[in-house]
Amino acid sequence: MNIEEKVSFEEKQYDLLTIGEILVDMISKDFSEDFSNDEYVKKFGGSPANIVINTKRLGLNSIVASSVGYDGFGDFLVSYLQNQGVDISLITRTTYPTSMVVVTRSKGTPIPIFYRGADYEIEYTQKLEEAIKNSKIMHFSTWPLSREKSRKVVEKGIEAAKKSGTLIGFDPNYHKDLWDMDVDGVSYIKSIIKYVDFIKPSEDDAERIFGKDTPENQIKKFIELGAKLVVMTLGKDGVIVADKNKMQRFSTLATEVQDTTGAGDAFWSGFYTGIVKGRSIQEAVKVGLAASAFKLRYVGAISPMPKYEDLIKEFNV
Amino acid sequence: MNIEEKVSFEEKQYDLLTIGEILVDMISKDFSEDFSNDEYVKKFGGSPANIVINTKRLGLNSIVASSVGYDGFGDFLVSYLQNQGVDISLITRTTYPTSMVVVTRSKGTPIPIFYRGADYEIEYTQKLEEAIKNSKIMHFSTWPLSREKSRKVVEKGIEAAKKSGTLIGFDPNYHKDLWDMDVDGVSYIKSIIKYVDFIKPSEDDAERIFGKDTPENQIKKFIELGAKLVVMTLGKDGVIVADKNKMQRFSTLATEVQDTTGAGDAFWSGFYTGIVKGRSIQEAVKVGLAASAFKLRYVGAISPMPKYEDLIKEFNV
Repeated sequence: MNIEEKVSFEEKQYDLLTIGEILVDMISKDFSEDFSNDEYVKKFGGSPANIVINTKRLGLNSIVASSVGYDGFGDFLVSYLQNQGVDISLITRTTYPTSMVVVTRSKGTPIPIFYRGADYEIEYTQKLEEAIKNSKIMHFSTWPLSREKSRKVVEKGIEAAKKSGTLIGFDPNYHKDLWDMDVDGVSYIKSIIKYVDFIKPSEDDAERIFGKDTPENQIKKFIELGAKLVVMTLGKDGVIVADKNKMQRFSTLATEVQDTTGAGDAFWSGFYTGIVKGRSIQEAVKVGLAASAFKLRYVGAISPMPKYEDLIKEFNV
Repeated sequence: MNIEEKVSFEEKQYDLLTIGEILVDMISKDFSEDFSNDEYVKKFGGSPANIVINTKRLGLNSIVASSVGYDGFGDFLVSYLQNQGVDISLITRTTYPTSMVVVTRSKGTPIPIFYRGADYEIEYTQKLEEAIKNSKIMHFSTWPLSREKSRKVVEKGIEAAKKSGTLIGFDPNYHKDLWDMDVDGVSYIKSIIKYVDFIKPSEDDAERIFGKDTPENQIKKFIELGAKLVVMTLGKDGVIVADKNKMQRFSTLATEVQDTTGAGDAFWSGFYTGIVKGRSIQEAVKVGLAASAFKLRYVGAISPMPKYEDLIKEFNV
């Protein structure tokens, strides 16, 4: 892969298929340093689902594969997706409770509490395999990798994608607390980077995998492990995009920052839309920056993302 | 055991030791039939802990054995107990998340979502064994029975209690969703009733274990399984107390009902206090009814329970 070139795709049914968590984010209304706060607000959550919602608005035909419980939270999440016009035919239901993350906001970095359940009960079905084969891009997060059952689903998905020319994107958002204690998550993540076409670490993601280093050195480590294309997001300092031979830095397009939640998902969404729409990698990165700049104006993980044509016009990318 | 007689106890360090769940109850602020509501309020919860808080106020020396996570919710629950003057030396911490129950209020019976974690990671320690031996009564709920690790803790606890003359109380609050799918919870519960001195089923509890029947017939089934004393609570219709040979019905003492949450725990608390204070079983049942009538005046699982002397004076029991 070369950052100056376009990616060529075969004609396929789906532009993008994401695999990973759909969950309830239970977020405290007030800030609290000692969890003495009482009130929480429930929100739709899960990065792979947010990317599908965003990319559908931008104009891609995208779909999410995940699992929720046979419970009221599962009903809530599925209804939410349906209201957003998302195809729910790859969402399975299980007797495990719908996964939830509790976030108690604090002055420092809040420490989330992870209540895993249904999300790692995702099944590798015939239907999922068909959808992977019929997608231009398959994207997955680290959540399904962190438990054996769902890890096998992603591994089979990678195999199916490789056989059918489906490109693979991976969000290496590693959190130690999510992983079974008998599995070395960092080693596992390193071991699958060679199968991946697109990887988008943040500085924090890279530090959790490799320890502290400069962005440029971190990118080299991903490339050495076999990543074909690395986009490293640096928050207000923009992004660096790199292939095996070249690195290029782009500035942020954000002028107004209301809330950074979901900015990474918005970047992925713009980036994937750019490459599917036939832009070069470099130009797709700019579309990603436009999408995240748009999202940053809104509070919450999901913003009313415009159509692709309106986004590129507004941000002149 | 004979309902007309007092229970005689050896002098021991603790009056009551409870084993079971401490957890966060996440309760919706508004009513919703389809989980579309947004706001939840976090509350201290767990019947075995509520019984300890109540009985301490009533004047018993009681203690709770449980397990919470190394997380903010664990900190919150432990601080709450400390603020209530409860000895936390039998609360262990684990890397699993603190257990939580989400209750979305609805016009019908709300269906809780159970997020189990730390509660079944309770350990059978030397310290716990010592405390069981040094207690007049050991009480447990069905939560620890529902998973293998904590079930073993209760089984060892029952053995230690039997060896040291500690009486055993059991709250058969069976919920199918709590149990591992490879264990028949109903059969297991039936199998341990023979070790139990006090059992207090509600009509719903009995129906979940035996199917629908009259209260009198349900009580006979508990007695046939080896229960020495059955107290069946019938809500506004009072309670029936029974030993092998005799059944007696008592009316409720409640005149004002604000909220039934925690009424069962209040009954247990009054009942245990009555028998420890040297009342006959029949009279202890009246103390239980007084404690639940007191609690029913307040919203929430825990009311500002008075001292035993004030409670029996007020309700003339």
